[in-house]
Amino acid sequence: MKTARMKVVIAFCFGLMLSASASARDFAIDHLEPASWWVGMKHSRVELMVHGNAIGPLQPRLSRPGVTVIDVQRVANPNYLFVTLEIAASASPGTFDIEFVDGDRVAARHPFRLDAREAGSAARKGFDASDAIYLITPDRFANGDPSNDSVAAMQERADRASPNGRHGGDIAGISAHLDYIAGMGFTQLWPTPLLENDQPKFSYHGYAITDLYRVDRRFGSNEDYRALSRSARAKGVGLIMDVVLNHIGSSHWWMRDLPTPDWINHGGKFAPTNHRRTTVQDPHAAPQDKADFVEGWFSPGMPDLNQRNPHLATYLIQNSLWWIEYAGLSGIREDTFGYADAEFLSAWGKAVLDEYPDFSMVGEEWSASPATVAHWQRGKVNADGHVPHMPSMMDFPVHTALRDALREAEGWDTGWIRLYEALANDYLYPDADRLVVFAENHDTTRMLANVKGDVALFKIAMAYLTTVRGTPQFFYGSEVLMEGPREREDGNIRADMPGGWAGDAKNAFTGAGLSPAERDAQDYLRRLLDWRRNTPVVQHGKLQHFAPVDGVYVYFRYDGQDTVMVALNRNAKPAPLALERFGRFIKAGSKGRDAMSGKAVALGTTLELAGDAATIISIE
Amino acid sequence: MKTARMKVVIAFCFGLMLSASASARDFAIDHLEPASWWVGMKHSRVELMVHGNAIGPLQPRLSRPGVTVIDVQRVANPNYLFVTLEIAASASPGTFDIEFVDGDRVAARHPFRLDAREAGSAARKGFDASDAIYLITPDRFANGDPSNDSVAAMQERADRASPNGRHGGDIAGISAHLDYIAGMGFTQLWPTPLLENDQPKFSYHGYAITDLYRVDRRFGSNEDYRALSRSARAKGVGLIMDVVLNHIGSSHWWMRDLPTPDWINHGGKFAPTNHRRTTVQDPHAAPQDKADFVEGWFSPGMPDLNQRNPHLATYLIQNSLWWIEYAGLSGIREDTFGYADAEFLSAWGKAVLDEYPDFSMVGEEWSASPATVAHWQRGKVNADGHVPHMPSMMDFPVHTALRDALREAEGWDTGWIRLYEALANDYLYPDADRLVVFAENHDTTRMLANVKGDVALFKIAMAYLTTVRGTPQFFYGSEVLMEGPREREDGNIRADMPGGWAGDAKNAFTGAGLSPAERDAQDYLRRLLDWRRNTPVVQHGKLQHFAPVDGVYVYFRYDGQDTVMVALNRNAKPAPLALERFGRFIKAGSKGRDAMSGKAVALGTTLELAGDAATIISIE
Repeated sequence: MKTARMKVVIAFCFGLMLSASASARDFAIDHLEPASWWVGMKHSRVELMVHGNAIGPLQPRLSRPGVTVIDVQRVANPNYLFVTLEIAASASPGTFDIEFVDGDRVAARHPFRLDAREAGSAARKGFDASDAIYLITPDRFANGDPSNDSVAAMQERADRASPNGRHGGDIAGISAHLDYIAGMGFTQLWPTPLLENDQPKFSYHGYAITDLYRVDRRFGSNEDYRALSRSARAKGVGLIMDVVLNHIGSSHWWMRDLPTPDWINHGGKFAPTNHRRTTVQDPHAAPQDKADFVEGWFSPGMPDLNQRNPHLATYLIQNSLWWIEYAGLSGIREDTFGYADAEFLSAWGKAVLDEYPDFSMVGEEWSASPATVAHWQRGKVNADGHVPHMPSMMDFPVHTALRDALREAEGWDTGWIRLYEALANDYLYPDADRLVVFAENHDTTRMLANVKGDVALFKIAMAYLTTVRGTPQFFYGSEVLMEGPREREDGNIRADMPGGWAGDAKNAFTGAGLSPAERDAQDYLRRLLDWRRNTPVVQHGKLQHFAPVDGVYVYFRYDGQDTVMVALNRNAKPAPLALERFGRFIKAGSKGRDAMSGKAVALGTTLELAGDAATIISIE
Repeated sequence: MKTARMKVVIAFCFGLMLSASASARDFAIDHLEPASWWVGMKHSRVELMVHGNAIGPLQPRLSRPGVTVIDVQRVANPNYLFVTLEIAASASPGTFDIEFVDGDRVAARHPFRLDAREAGSAARKGFDASDAIYLITPDRFANGDPSNDSVAAMQERADRASPNGRHGGDIAGISAHLDYIAGMGFTQLWPTPLLENDQPKFSYHGYAITDLYRVDRRFGSNEDYRALSRSARAKGVGLIMDVVLNHIGSSHWWMRDLPTPDWINHGGKFAPTNHRRTTVQDPHAAPQDKADFVEGWFSPGMPDLNQRNPHLATYLIQNSLWWIEYAGLSGIREDTFGYADAEFLSAWGKAVLDEYPDFSMVGEEWSASPATVAHWQRGKVNADGHVPHMPSMMDFPVHTALRDALREAEGWDTGWIRLYEALANDYLYPDADRLVVFAENHDTTRMLANVKGDVALFKIAMAYLTTVRGTPQFFYGSEVLMEGPREREDGNIRADMPGGWAGDAKNAFTGAGLSPAERDAQDYLRRLLDWRRNTPVVQHGKLQHFAPVDGVYVYFRYDGQDTVMVALNRNAKPAPLALERFGRFIKAGSKGRDAMSGKAVALGTTLELAGDAATIISIE
């Protein structure tokens, strides 16, 4: 009996050992991110996130000259390992395996690739005020490859009939129209996010990312994205990536096996943000309100990342560096800026700029308050001690003022005065010249809808953006008078670009089927941008503006050599503008040349301004 | 012939000499300002402005131990002399003559008085957040002395029937009602200017001063003003002087004989200000627009002072010091702040605080932009390098938000959120606790008109002002529900205080004839102020507020010892407020006491809030 019992026990224990060693042999590395890095990065210590069932107890090792495992961190979840590699400048590019050993045995292995950096990568110059940015919603721009409209393994299938469905636009479509983009005069392309959004619905917009290292297959591949970047650059167009640090999509694989309990704010369960962004700087704000702003979710489909977790922070920083280096980006647009943890945002911005000192990043802080926006710009000395690193921010205060100004009748405190007073706040920014100015984006009604279809006012807005300080940003389709709904309906604001789909009756790219007004508007913007590209003073000159009087707002760009005058006239009828007030810029004998027509303009005591129009004059 | 000719020449020359010496004997000193000073001031070098026909060539001298003429400045206008006295701390109080000599002969003389300072004068403490300010328009408050309603020698006579005429209110009227003022709980009195406005019309408002050293005789005398200050102080009420540095009245004697051609902006001729205050900080503003703001006149009746003239700057600084010392002021309210020269404002503020380090001054910068207001507060580090010295500014941004909040329906970005977001900007101020908060003043419609007569909303405003950070300021008559016009009509906004005139049917001071609602409102404010005076935490405690939800805005004042909860409910019906959110302040076992009723309030999981009302609870 004793023997028999012992046999049973031994057999039982052996069974356990067997099952353990069997599972060791079966270990699978489901994710290892990033799976590549570059030799010669300042960020040479890379923390890999390794994920696989029960891999936590395994020990990583590798044998590659110049590459060392210098740290291994484990978390409570046994399916994760955080492995830090030190990559020496002497390491050679190439692929090698990282082994995960169980005692002496290799239980799993995963390839890792080291690449050589492209020449000049670290010194790349981001976008600046000499650029013009074209914002597109890729699903709605052009369908270059109908074969990828739906992907069998992915949740949402194409449905062009639905405003909120996927319409099939893709990287191939963008690539096919780079000549159009460059030809219009845009020098930077900002597509809303292209990374995987394998969500059940609303996946077209891209802001619910389910894999931070993979382009959505319905848009194309990582390689397609990189190829787009390269061919765009060859045509003089930089690529700006839309980065989302605040949240992911609810179908992200993390959500099925959270690395740590604190990875997602509110423990992985939906609780909404209060959207009260003033809490960030408010000295009186209740701490919970501040937390609710930053930690609350945008929607149930967008789990809110807790960037205070150091592994997640490192993951996100590396992810940005990876894409910049991989795809040769010229800039980043960062989504829902202040909703992420402020300390993390500071660290993230610093890390990117440490690696790429002349790179550009622009943050979205959707506030009409310049002090709220300025809080995040590099160089701002903040009362709360926050040290920001963003070279640029979206100029929502000017955006708001521009829209109000053009929607309202002129009055003592309405109309142009709003724009005048918005720009007057530039002293609040460390560097207002680096803001990005825009009339509309994918989240607002289009400017043409804002002015109730008044094309003349829309054209004034375009002229303003191309002549005011900062980098102008335009929204696809508005150049051919896409108007969209007059109240916010995202899916319809982001309507299909005419000509992007086979069989479209109208084609913005070729001009076929465009009405005379559409063609004229497109031509107007093209000429504005062409002129702007060849007029450095409008890009980098100083700005001086004059308090609006009688519905006319006048400002000058000047640099000691060249001078441009802009007069925005909100009177429906032509109006003579007395020039005496502008004596600093228009002197006896000054000659004018209309920027649009190239024709000489007499600069006597008055200048005749067309009704409801921008007049742009080069002063010679 | 020769002799005869010589005789003629001699007679001619003698005649010249005679006429010179005759006019010398006839010199009259029309003005010598200030005509008194104090021994022991830090500002011990006093520049006297001396005015009289052709006195310019005369030489001032005096013989008084400790008093020395240290400088004499002449200007192109021969009718002025600027004489600087150095007054040693050893000088004795008393009156002595300043002689003006022509060669060896005394051509004119004028008395000058040295006074001893009151004990503690330099160390006087100005108003602060423990105070409550009562703003009155003296012509409209109470007519204590009908005999001075009109003064024969002065241009405008009383006409109570005219909204824009003089109604007869005076210092005697104020003095007679100090018990009412103190009894209401006001601890500071701000009368709009009492100095002479000998203007042909609109003289009642006081902002067109024609003699900066003299109280308007229709209000009383300088002595009456000083006596008012003393008797008010004896009742616990400080006196705030309304100082106007920007302009004078067009009937000021300077206008008949300008000291210098640059004394008045635009050469003494009317040219309007553009009112574009953003030009002050705007890095893009056209220089002429900046100049037009500061140098333009408010109205033809208000010549705009050029404080860049050093004699004028000194005159204005000394004038402020003189009144503080003479009348024992506890504070200054400075009118139309940014319209004056910024460098001068800095020098003026510094000079006052050098003399009275704990004095209070509050500036009027009528802008809803906190960055515009903050520019002027002491301690603000400004991008334009301006060094401000004002301890306090009027909180126009909160004023604007409060009025909007109570006028609007509650919504995502309307109603309480405006007030919440206005207060969130406090980080822009060096010291937001020193701002003066107010719902209305003599230039705005009354709050009751702003809320279209809704007394419940008006009472919420009163409760807000008494519980938010800062020093609250109230406007006479609103406590008895004076409503006034719903659009701005200054003369009617500044209506007569009921009971201030003999025969008034209604009397706010005694309560006679007040309706129950008027009596209730008056009682409500009296109780609020009484409670506030006895509740230091509401004066000086920290503030924490919670983002408004469902029409309810909650904030706490706390100081580590005491805690007060304020819940402002914009729902018409009573609403239960869940208290869990306020766990930092309301703990299990916390007991509440209603500030108004003194009754105990149960603090369970919810608190019942009355509809359209402020609930104020002391947490014990």
